[in-house]
Order: sequence, then C-alpha cells, then structure tokens
Amino acid sequence: MRPRLALVAGEPAGVGPELCVRLAQQRRDDCRITVFADADTLTAAAAALSLPLRLLHRDAAVERPGDIVLYPFSNAAPARFGEPDPRNARAVIGALLSAAGGCLRGDFDGLVTGPVHKATINAGGIAYTGTTELLATQAGCEVVMMLANDTARVALATTHLPLRSVADAITRDSLIRQLRIMHAALRDDFDIATPTIAVLGLNPHAGEAGHLGREEIDVIVPALDALRAEGLQLIGPLPADTAFLPTKLAGFDAVLAMYHDQGLPVLKYSGFERAVNLTLGLPYPRVAVDHGTALDLAGSGRADPSSLFAAVETCARIAGSRRAR
Amino acid sequence: MRPRLALVAGEPAGVGPELCVRLAQQRRDDCRITVFADADTLTAAAAALSLPLRLLHRDAAVERPGDIVLYPFSNAAPARFGEPDPRNARAVIGALLSAAGGCLRGDFDGLVTGPVHKATINAGGIAYTGTTELLATQAGCEVVMMLANDTARVALATTHLPLRSVADAITRDSLIRQLRIMHAALRDDFDIATPTIAVLGLNPHAGEAGHLGREEIDVIVPALDALRAEGLQLIGPLPADTAFLPTKLAGFDAVLAMYHDQGLPVLKYSGFERAVNLTLGLPYPRVAVDHGTALDLAGSGRADPSSLFAAVETCARIAGSRRAR
Repeated sequence: MRPRLALVAGEPAGVGPELCVRLAQQRRDDCRITVFADADTLTAAAAALSLPLRLLHRDAAVERPGDIVLYPFSNAAPARFGEPDPRNARAVIGALLSAAGGCLRGDFDGLVTGPVHKATINAGGIAYTGTTELLATQAGCEVVMMLANDTARVALATTHLPLRSVADAITRDSLIRQLRIMHAALRDDFDIATPTIAVLGLNPHAGEAGHLGREEIDVIVPALDALRAEGLQLIGPLPADTAFLPTKLAGFDAVLAMYHDQGLPVLKYSGFERAVNLTLGLPYPRVAVDHGTALDLAGSGRADPSSLFAAVETCARIAGSRRAR
Repeated sequence: MRPRLALVAGEPAGVGPELCVRLAQQRRDDCRITVFADADTLTAAAAALSLPLRLLHRDAAVERPGDIVLYPFSNAAPARFGEPDPRNARAVIGALLSAAGGCLRGDFDGLVTGPVHKATINAGGIAYTGTTELLATQAGCEVVMMLANDTARVALATTHLPLRSVADAITRDSLIRQLRIMHAALRDDFDIATPTIAVLGLNPHAGEAGHLGREEIDVIVPALDALRAEGLQLIGPLPADTAFLPTKLAGFDAVLAMYHDQGLPVLKYSGFERAVNLTLGLPYPRVAVDHGTALDLAGSGRADPSSLFAAVETCARIAGSRRAR
C-alpha cells in the first residue's frame, strides 16, 4: 500500500495552489495525496494555468491527470493572485494544523507543505513565527530544521534570530539534542547505517584555537566529545568557509551549521530548484518546499514546481521506509 | 613595457616556494617577476619536484624555463618541508615588507604573496594578525579584503573576529568607506564603468523588516542611502541565503558580505582552485593566493598551483591597467 501524504497548499494568493494543480497532472506510483486547501482557490489556479482539475471527495481515488483528493478548507475571502488577505489566515493555519493532526493520529503517513506568508498570518491575528515551530508546538517535541538538495544536507543549530543573539543561543545541551535528532533521522529516514555528520564552528576558522572566539572550545567540542563517547560519527568543529568544498562535502552525510547564513548560501547556490526543507524529530515525516509564496509569479504559470515535486518524492520515500520497519 | 611584479614566496616550510618554482617553468608575456625568498629554500623545492631552477641577479632577464630573478632573503634556519621554524619568521616578514616597500616606492607595479603561517610568525616574536593588516599598516591606509574567482567577487565588511563581535564592528561610516574603496577598485582596476555592488544584510532574511534584527534599518540602509545619493549603484541589503543564486550573482559586479562565514562558503564552493585574495585600497595592487601553507603537501609536488597562477595573472592585469591610465 502506497503511503498516504497530506499536502497543504499554503497561502492562497501565492504559488502554492497552482503548484498543487501542476502536481496533480502527474501520475504518482509512490504515494496517495490528499490536498488541504480551498476548492475555489484550486479551481481559479487551474483556470489561470489552463490545466484540467477535478476535485474528489476524500474517499475517492485519483483516476486521471488533474484529479485531486480534497480535504476542503474554505477561505473567508476570495483569493486573489498576489494579494494575500489576512482574513484567510485562519483557513491557512487551520489546514496546516488539521493535516498535521491527521499525521499525528495516523490518518496520514507524512506531511508536505507549500509556502505560507508570515506577515499575512500575523496580520490575521495569529501569532506565527514559522510552520516548523508551529508543528513542533502541536506535537510537543523538539525539532531540527534541515535543508537538502542533491548536493548536500544542511541542518541549522539556530534558525530565525538576530545574528547578535546566535552565540548565546547555542549550548552544549542543545547541540547534543540536535545532533541526536539528526543522527536518528539519517539512520532511520535516509537508511544510512552509520551517518557521518560534519559540525561547523561558530567563529571564522572555527575559532583558530581560541584566537577568534572560544565557543568551539567551551561549547562545541564538549558536545561532540560527549556524543562520540556514545558512538556517533562526528567531524569538526570545521571552518565553515572550506567545509563545503565539493571534495569535503562528499565525505559527509549531513552538515550541522551553527546559524542560518552560515549554512544556507551554499545549499541554495548549489541547487535551489530541487531543495527541500525537512523537519526532523516529529513523529511523522514533514517536508516543505524551500521557497516562499512568490506572490509576483502567482497565476502566471511561471513558478517552478521542482521543489514541490522533490518534497513529495522525499516525503513519500521516508514515509515508505518508516512503514517498512 | 610589461609590469614588474614582486612575488613573495611566504612560509619556507609550506608550498609557497615550490609554487614559485612551478610558476617559473611558464613563459610569461604579461609581467616580469622578482621573487622575494631564501635561495636555499627555492633550490630544495626545485630538487624535490625535479624541476630546473636558475637563480638570477635582480638585474638579469629570464631566458628559459626555471629562471627566477631573485631578491634574496636568507633564512636563519634551514627550511624543512612541513615543519615551520619560528627562527625564520623575521625573514618571512622581512621579505613581505621589503617587497611591499618596493611597491610603495614604485620599484614594482604590484605585489603577489604566497601563504604565511600565522602561528609560526607569532611564535617567532612578531605580532602578526594577517598580511592584509600588515600591508595596510605599512602603507597607512584603510583596505578592504576581496576574494574573487571566475564566479564571483566577494568583499568582507569584517574579517577575522569572533562572531559575537561582528554586529558591533559594523558602522554606517565603516560601510561607507568600504563601499567607496570597492567602487573605486571595480571601476579603476576591473574597468567596470558603473559597478553594481550587492550588499548583504547582517541578519537572516536581511532582518525581515526589523523582526530578526535592526542593523539593516539602523546601519546598513542609511549607509547605502548616503552612497546612492553620490551616484553609487548599490543593491540591498539582501538576504544572504538567496543573494548567491547564480541568476542573481550574474547581475552583480561584486558582493559585500557582512562577515567571513556569510561571504566565503559559496565563493570557495564555486571555485576554490582559481580563487584569489585581493587587497583593495592600497596604493598598489596586491593579490594573494586563497589557500594556506598546506604543510602536509610541501615537497610532494601535489600542491595545486592554480591559485598562484591566477593571482599573478590578476595582479599583472590590474598593474597593466593602472599603468595605462
């Protein structure tokens, strides 16, 4: 039986709905998909792209290109391409929580999410810092954000906070927890028996033996030593500027960067289109697209669906391998 | 008349001397080179690599492969591959200052430098944080470090300091001075009539309108506004994770990153071998190799000379274009 994925279209005014319609044109042998979205929004997106669309009840089966099994979430206001409406914030977040709740209950085997527009959600009166954080709160567990493409997997020890807050946000214990989550995910979801994780330093040149900062000595090395004693295979702390050299990357199953702009530029440079965003540590696999709502492209048909396709493939593969265990 | 370049071999125990010997095997039509190094060290490097070498007096002319016009700096202790000796620190720094002094006096039109071993220089009793800083002090001017390869040019607003010190080290005035130096160098040394410079934000997502830090609003935007009023073409502040996407990079003549590990990973990933390190703002062009002493490779002949070759070509081109003005 193919794994069942819940797919949340995301912001109705962005490219999420039309990417779901484009996905529905493909025949899929790796999973069964239920889309969480507003029916009128999907219909408008299909019309704008001149693509066939048939919305099916959740118990029906996909038969032909354009078929979507829908779990409907009605918008409060009609969606207009490129113009997010805060009145729809509740439907957007409702769809997310409902789909994730279905994963927690076992109705679905994995969650794929389209892009959400953070400012609009907040303008709609819902305190929201990001989908990763929302899902972690709902599930009541600690998570790690990991970006991946065909070149590299890069997880982040800190995500969205001001640069001057980064150093204090990283502790020995938080690194230990994050590396355990990464290790388990690489082993269980990526079928890597003994994962090798490279850990970057916080400071340039990984602190150069304390001359350029002491966090490597005081925080990172003690965390790595504790985990090596448990048998984890860890390399580092490495200088970030040379850790991504292609010959070095080839020796790592994943990289843990200390902060956002240290880890993501190479990942996005080396293959933005196929990049996906994984949330490690949840009870179910969750994979998101690695792009935003692209409001300027909505309805034009010019948005690249590669990231959504890669997210679905990745989620289906992980869900399948979890069910096989 | 071809421009005259001073080439400093750098740490005698590293790969610098043998790279100079390999360079001497090439016929060069773009410049005349004088090497500042210890004669015995060059001789040993040539022997290890089984390459011809003839050391010439500084007034002689190169005639055949292996000829080096030498400005000799005798080491205090015999150089041994892979084992830097602090007793030679004085000769290493002496060669650097002498070559750079020759550039300041006009005896040479540009300076190319091989790798230096920072810890050994300091162990030799010489306070040294880096060649860029040393040359800036000698010349009495403010400089900007810029790394370049065939993909991108990336300058740094801060270089070698702990991550937690970065935010406070960047001021409106320092950015204004650095961007003026970059603009002048791109115009005068790279012959770009109206250079377009992309400036990165300090915080993730360039601060996301103040939600992830205020330095963009308080420091960076005011600096850019002041310079735009002078006619400089500046883009930003841009989120660092997507600024390096190949399609975006193509629109920039250079990028100013706020700190070391934000700017250099993509540059090194995208073409480490041919990368060079330029010092902008000196009265003469200075180009360095973008690698270290590679002590483990010294004497083996396996060190890649591409970065030194690129540094010489780049310096010769800039020196030629300055002389043409």
